Amino acid sequence: MNQRTDDARHGKATDAQDAPRILDLPVGLSATGTRRETDSLGAVDVPADRYWGAQTQRSLIHFSIGDDRMPKAVYHAYGYVKKAAAVVNGRAGRLPKWKSELIQRVADEVIAGQLDEHFPLYVWQTGSGTQSNMNTNEVISNRAIQLVGGELGSKTPIHPNDHVNMGQSSNDTFPTAMHIAALAEVDGHLLPAIKALRTAFARKAHEWQDVVKIGRTHLEDAVPLTVGQEWSGYAHQLEQAADRLAASCQGLHELAAGGTAVGTGLNAPPGFAEQIAAEIAAETGRPFTTAGNKFAAQGGLDALVGASSGLRALAVPLMKIANDIRWLASGPRCGLAELTLPANEPGSSIMPGKVNPTQCEAMVMVCIQVLAEDSAIAFAGSQGNFELNAMRPVIINNFLHSATILGDACEKLREYCIEGAELNRDQVQRYVDQSLMLVTALSPAIGYDKASAIAHKASDEGTTLRDAALASGVPADEFDRIVQPATMV
Amino acid sequence: MNQRTDDARHGKATDAQDAPRILDLPVGLSATGTRRETDSLGAVDVPADRYWGAQTQRSLIHFSIGDDRMPKAVYHAYGYVKKAAAVVNGRAGRLPKWKSELIQRVADEVIAGQLDEHFPLYVWQTGSGTQSNMNTNEVISNRAIQLVGGELGSKTPIHPNDHVNMGQSSNDTFPTAMHIAALAEVDGHLLPAIKALRTAFARKAHEWQDVVKIGRTHLEDAVPLTVGQEWSGYAHQLEQAADRLAASCQGLHELAAGGTAVGTGLNAPPGFAEQIAAEIAAETGRPFTTAGNKFAAQGGLDALVGASSGLRALAVPLMKIANDIRWLASGPRCGLAELTLPANEPGSSIMPGKVNPTQCEAMVMVCIQVLAEDSAIAFAGSQGNFELNAMRPVIINNFLHSATILGDACEKLREYCIEGAELNRDQVQRYVDQSLMLVTALSPAIGYDKASAIAHKASDEGTTLRDAALASGVPADEFDRIVQPATMV
Amino acid sequence: MNQRTDDARHGKATDAQDAPRILDLPVGLSATGTRRETDSLGAVDVPADRYWGAQTQRSLIHFSIGDDRMPKAVYHAYGYVKKAAAVVNGRAGRLPKWKSELIQRVADEVIAGQLDEHFPLYVWQTGSGTQSNMNTNEVISNRAIQLVGGELGSKTPIHPNDHVNMGQSSNDTFPTAMHIAALAEVDGHLLPAIKALRTAFARKAHEWQDVVKIGRTHLEDAVPLTVGQEWSGYAHQLEQAADRLAASCQGLHELAAGGTAVGTGLNAPPGFAEQIAAEIAAETGRPFTTAGNKFAAQGGLDALVGASSGLRALAVPLMKIANDIRWLASGPRCGLAELTLPANEPGSSIMPGKVNPTQCEAMVMVCIQVLAEDSAIAFAGSQGNFELNAMRPVIINNFLHSATILGDACEKLREYCIEGAELNRDQVQRYVDQSLMLVTALSPAIGYDKASAIAHKASDEGTTLRDAALASGVPADEFDRIVQPATMV
Amino acid sequence: MNQRTDDARHGKATDAQDAPRILDLPVGLSATGTRRETDSLGAVDVPADRYWGAQTQRSLIHFSIGDDRMPKAVYHAYGYVKKAAAVVNGRAGRLPKWKSELIQRVADEVIAGQLDEHFPLYVWQTGSGTQSNMNTNEVISNRAIQLVGGELGSKTPIHPNDHVNMGQSSNDTFPTAMHIAALAEVDGHLLPAIKALRTAFARKAHEWQDVVKIGRTHLEDAVPLTVGQEWSGYAHQLEQAADRLAASCQGLHELAAGGTAVGTGLNAPPGFAEQIAAEIAAETGRPFTTAGNKFAAQGGLDALVGASSGLRALAVPLMKIANDIRWLASGPRCGLAELTLPANEPGSSIMPGKVNPTQCEAMVMVCIQVLAEDSAIAFAGSQGNFELNAMRPVIINNFLHSATILGDACEKLREYCIEGAELNRDQVQRYVDQSLMLVTALSPAIGYDKASAIAHKASDEGTTLRDAALASGVPADEFDRIVQPATMV
Repeated sequence: MNQRTDDARHGKATDAQDAPRILDLPVGLSATGTRRETDSLGAVDVPADRYWGAQTQRSLIHFSIGDDRMPKAVYHAYGYVKKAAAVVNGRAGRLPKWKSELIQRVADEVIAGQLDEHFPLYVWQTGSGTQSNMNTNEVISNRAIQLVGGELGSKTPIHPNDHVNMGQSSNDTFPTAMHIAALAEVDGHLLPAIKALRTAFARKAHEWQDVVKIGRTHLEDAVPLTVGQEWSGYAHQLEQAADRLAASCQGLHELAAGGTAVGTGLNAPPGFAEQIAAEIAAETGRPFTTAGNKFAAQGGLDALVGASSGLRALAVPLMKIANDIRWLASGPRCGLAELTLPANEPGSSIMPGKVNPTQCEAMVMVCIQVLAEDSAIAFAGSQGNFELNAMRPVIINNFLHSATILGDACEKLREYCIEGAELNRDQVQRYVDQSLMLVTALSPAIGYDKASAIAHKASDEGTTLRDAALASGVPADEFDRIVQPATMV
Repeated sequence: MNQRTDDARHGKATDAQDAPRILDLPVGLSATGTRRETDSLGAVDVPADRYWGAQTQRSLIHFSIGDDRMPKAVYHAYGYVKKAAAVVNGRAGRLPKWKSELIQRVADEVIAGQLDEHFPLYVWQTGSGTQSNMNTNEVISNRAIQLVGGELGSKTPIHPNDHVNMGQSSNDTFPTAMHIAALAEVDGHLLPAIKALRTAFARKAHEWQDVVKIGRTHLEDAVPLTVGQEWSGYAHQLEQAADRLAASCQGLHELAAGGTAVGTGLNAPPGFAEQIAAEIAAETGRPFTTAGNKFAAQGGLDALVGASSGLRALAVPLMKIANDIRWLASGPRCGLAELTLPANEPGSSIMPGKVNPTQCEAMVMVCIQVLAEDSAIAFAGSQGNFELNAMRPVIINNFLHSATILGDACEKLREYCIEGAELNRDQVQRYVDQSLMLVTALSPAIGYDKASAIAHKASDEGTTLRDAALASGVPADEFDRIVQPATMV
Repeated sequence: MNQRTDDARHGKATDAQDAPRILDLPVGLSATGTRRETDSLGAVDVPADRYWGAQTQRSLIHFSIGDDRMPKAVYHAYGYVKKAAAVVNGRAGRLPKWKSELIQRVADEVIAGQLDEHFPLYVWQTGSGTQSNMNTNEVISNRAIQLVGGELGSKTPIHPNDHVNMGQSSNDTFPTAMHIAALAEVDGHLLPAIKALRTAFARKAHEWQDVVKIGRTHLEDAVPLTVGQEWSGYAHQLEQAADRLAASCQGLHELAAGGTAVGTGLNAPPGFAEQIAAEIAAETGRPFTTAGNKFAAQGGLDALVGASSGLRALAVPLMKIANDIRWLASGPRCGLAELTLPANEPGSSIMPGKVNPTQCEAMVMVCIQVLAEDSAIAFAGSQGNFELNAMRPVIINNFLHSATILGDACEKLREYCIEGAELNRDQVQRYVDQSLMLVTALSPAIGYDKASAIAHKASDEGTTLRDAALASGVPADEFDRIVQPATMV
Repeated sequence: MNQRTDDARHGKATDAQDAPRILDLPVGLSATGTRRETDSLGAVDVPADRYWGAQTQRSLIHFSIGDDRMPKAVYHAYGYVKKAAAVVNGRAGRLPKWKSELIQRVADEVIAGQLDEHFPLYVWQTGSGTQSNMNTNEVISNRAIQLVGGELGSKTPIHPNDHVNMGQSSNDTFPTAMHIAALAEVDGHLLPAIKALRTAFARKAHEWQDVVKIGRTHLEDAVPLTVGQEWSGYAHQLEQAADRLAASCQGLHELAAGGTAVGTGLNAPPGFAEQIAAEIAAETGRPFTTAGNKFAAQGGLDALVGASSGLRALAVPLMKIANDIRWLASGPRCGLAELTLPANEPGSSIMPGKVNPTQCEAMVMVCIQVLAEDSAIAFAGSQGNFELNAMRPVIINNFLHSATILGDACEKLREYCIEGAELNRDQVQRYVDQSLMLVTALSPAIGYDKASAIAHKASDEGTTLRDAALASGVPADEFDRIVQPATMV
């Protein structure tokens, strides 16, 4: 008896001519009522129109906590894992070719989201993600059985553990799927959304590059800069945040797959780790490699904690920028009123005609949520024990949620707020004309102390800076030569 | 022209005999395609089978961020607000009796959840909750119009602002609905779940009250206590946590309603605040009162931040307890192994026969999530400005989510873990027999220093404590008299 | 041999006539170099001018982490514990009267802070606080020995464990000291500081009760209120926060003392828990009682986690208020400029004459720190195991630090910012004159939709609200009758 | 009048032969009482034995909040900034050569810590750090004045603003000093401490590379690995964390200096930003460059928020590892007892002979603190407005504190816990002998389901796995061939 006898054990010959014909059946089960499924604890009834088996059903019963479901993105990612394992196992002859291909075919359906409704489990489940792994194994098993005309729940000819999970443990494959899912969301959704928002800011910065405005530090009037300069800062912050996010996600390219139960690779053949990583890389087009140390990769989730700090790195400047925008747009008559934002909706149920910076508010709330979810990820990341961090579901759920709402909020802010923002040039100029902090330009010429006295004099007497300066002995021509906002930016 | 002319303005006489007949129509719109709705910004097409109007539709378009929807519990709570306002306005004659009753009737449908699918808005929306208020106003308006055979979208005879929102602003009613919804979830779901869990612990404490075990401090062997004492601690922590939660929610009974836009009560008649609070109290059976200072109640959300700390007060001991349980159940052969937990599901996809403390893991993850969401609530609570804290949706969504998953997790932990936990009495006794810390009982008799030397001697030499004590000159009869675990608890 | 033979064992008769004479020696050791001290692990050299013994010295060596020292307030509180224990033990005859009185005398010195320099240990030490307990025991022992002319380090006639620590464990007394210290800081420092700040706000609210201003919601112009109303909101938030803090600290009155090592009270005589709590209550004048369940009180630190949420309940509104103040004071020419704050210092090293809202900034930073420290406390509170939460030092250090900086920041903000704040009445009035949201008052008369159109018209055309209203057909006399800011507040 | 006339204005010729003689005076002022100092708000008395001036004194009065002082490391870093500015200004002739050299000389004293006691300010001060910048300017001014025999407080010949602060604002130089100080702490202290700890783990991993032990997942017995493998995971996690920290600190090399008040570089000559960065790079030996966008660099503090996530990236695995160590060392008789840790101190004041994992507890507490301080930094990082993030002091204080305690805790853990940890080989082997999870090795041969039944049988019947397997029909020779722990790792 050895690993190659798999099919003998399951009552099938291994050669291709014995391979069953694959039926051309669409995804779906038309049965009603329930079906009996079994696992090592016994039998369970499952809905007859679902592919899942006993372990999924047990989890549904025992963990109906809130309505947080394991994100579908995790299952799509798991599809890659199962497909890659089948490829590697098939190539090495551990799985008959037709079994390998059958699993691959169903895995492709998983990847494409065609089996999404068969992945119902809650986030709050076993901390290893085993139940979601078994959900995947069970669904692939039964869908494969359906495709060869077998009996659902029979685990024949495709067994959820022995075939779909061959050479794998949840302990190594769930974090593998987490990494794949996280990168897909960041690269496919969040980074493009940030970059588009950055571009929107950069365009405005270009459009307003010559408009001189009063800067503000400590919320107090300061020396001038151009509106374009201010907005170039926003664009630059986002660009750097995108870079930080990308850098913080690099560690996600290391995959635990191949470590199996505790990192030693027990029950996975030599080379399995490298091969499955290579296969996942080929399938996804991303530079995945096998993790350098599986004990670290399974005992901790440091790469995801690190990646989460990249989400936070984005939320922090976005919150600052969204706040700036709404303050600059405050008014219209009793605020700063430098900007006018698009009126996307009536602002008040009681105050007619009110327009509010709602996109900015949504963004600020999203950022607060992301900061909180990042702290949950870090906390959970610290709570591993020995060969397993059993806080995986809470980590991947928060990560994917944060990445999704950040990306969406960036898109909405761009489309419904930033791109349509308009500058109130008169108001901007009025502030420049009134400001006292232009006195700073005099400082190198007359010294800080005297300049300070002039500013206080103007403030106390309610006069212009020029009046106060001239009254303090600064020659008019010198004042006019030095104190030019346009040359101070 | 004055407030009483409302109906003249809307083309209706105020006396009851002019009241239209109320049709007995079930909830639902059978139309297909779209319907044109309007608001102060113009016209918008909405799905013809939905009651909502233009503002809801605008929000759906502008805020499709993630898939977080404003919890239905907020709308149910808003149902009470709208009903109470209609009662108060009707009673005072500001609304004709039939309009008041019509709004009340639809509000009852809202409260009962019959209109849930007509409240689709996202959490990430305007920070005041105005869009959800308007969603409620629009749905009540159109459903009321339907019931009198009017034209959907005509705002006649029930106008979303002028009638459903009469005397109200989102600024005062949204936090009112937040308070109502939060209390309903805590009182109706979470507290009962905690209490049931506490009872389960108390029962086990009683069952095991006489089983002496070794205590552990710093994870290290310490002096004995009974298993019942240990579990009485769990029960007591939960009891106190429930008390803390209840106390922390007291502030939620103060309602902002009546403050309208900025807390002054503009457009609400004198006494409106007190009357609407009384009406809500009557409808809900809870001791609601009007907030003592509306500027505080609308500019801040301190009562909810305070209530959230009650959720955290529960999560903190639950996390400790869940961790204790899983450590005590660790093993079966290489851990502490004092407890055996129910085997609800196979534990591993690779390791046959493995049983894991999955309910405890789910609980720990839930607690981490609750701690994070509590920090989001506190952060958001600090970000108000002037007459409004515009972070309301993120606060109520996190609060209700935390309360829900905590309550559910308590139920699951109780049913699937605690109630079925079994004590491994042999193992517990084995530890008592082996422990060295029983030496502590000798300390008052022979002094700390000598007792310490005995413990070190036994540890170094791998002997029993008794052997080491006797070898150190403690008379055997004295040792046996003093060192009795059963008398040390 | 029994507990009463304590003195026989230590070579002393128990009757009072054998009591040594107490020397009238001031606190302090004039020796130089080192002194040999011992504990159960052997001998250690300690500085000859310090009272501490071997265990303190070991801790100093092994835990020199950063420069965070266990707050002196913890030792002052421990003084009460040691004194109370000595009283109770003396009264029951477990300690000879003179030993009890000697310990009490030195405990009084500890309480009074006279021995502060002899408590050098770091925060980052054993998680039970044992080392700080032993530091206290050692110092009291040696100081007592000094007072009777004994040999330092001899542990005779007052032994740190057998006498000073009699009937106690760190496991029960350290959390007892934490509770005492926390309450002393809250009641003695923080609550008075909050109340004084609240009063300062209330005074300003009274002073400005009739000044009508424009309210702001979403940062946007809203309907009017009085400055006094706005500031009454600040005062009310602080009043409620103070109430929440006081309520959240109630649980601190329950003391673990008497539970000894694991909560069973081993080595403490019957009644000890109640008696020591009563004695501490008598000494401190606070209503301390013994904890209802010692296993809960020692396995968790829920009362402190709960109390910390009271600190947070204060930080949240303080942050909002400090932000409001600095925004209202923004300008002087290019901000809201409704307030002028005292110029306590030059604001800029480069911009002459700049005045910044520095007290508000300090307060905001303090609040951020308090929120973070509160999250550390909650996290640490969740990390207990079995009969001990071994995260005590990090909890008490953060609690006391937060309470201290909050109290101090309240004092500074009051004295250097709020009390001297001045209202720029012209600016406030100017905003009222310009605002468009006064249109809200028209809404009950002409309907929300028409009122909304008027506001948009005024905004688009840059006219006053009155012009737009009249141009829209509102009679001038009606407008003037309804739209009166002073009647809208 | 222009910038070059500086010295004329201050009554000094610019050529070198007029340079005053530099006196060879040690640091220190022997005067007693007070000295009158002035700033733009007037005169203030300062302690006569301190170099600081009026602004420092004002800050001391207005901000005595707690006892948190701006870390000295910030001033040492500021020394580099002031020196570099003097070099650049001197080279360009904006400062006379002798003034430049004089400032440089004093800056060297600042860098060396010789003036530490003259930097007394609190963390809780102006959010820009202006007061600490002015403290530096004032101290350098007065120390320079002392060195040329001038009158303290006269600001002649070295003026704190016009000379020491020439071309600078707090707004650009304070974040510059923050970056320099943060990198110095990370590179000089924290990273070496991590690496030494990593090495200690790697050595143990090597030492124990062949000792087979039972792995644990979900705290439950799992399949075997070697102790060396487990500890290689610890070493690897720390290595990756160190890499993450280093990567996360890269952004700190970008300096804001040259942006002056709002990022435009007003009052700094062209090229100043590049030159001062180059000079700081030369002085410190680190690759500093000027920030790509000064508006981003001053309006946000994203680089420090990013760097802080590197501290967190270290705390997360350290907490996991410290917890593992203390669990593995739990016992000695009633825990896992695989490890024995050094007994550095008596563990209990009541339980004689107790040894606790105190270093691990200190590390866990430090990690909790670091996670909390990291969240404070992120929060503060989000609270900037317009051209300034005014939350700088809270950010740099938390960053430096976290880095310091993490580094120190790593050193202590290594020296007093890890290096002296010993393996209890008998106990480790005993677990291997008893474990049931070795059944996993049978799974590829007999299938998951049958293997599972065997494990359950052994568990239920309390037998060995071999007995259960043979009783289930597995041939003895096959069992013995496959189930060999040493080949399973």
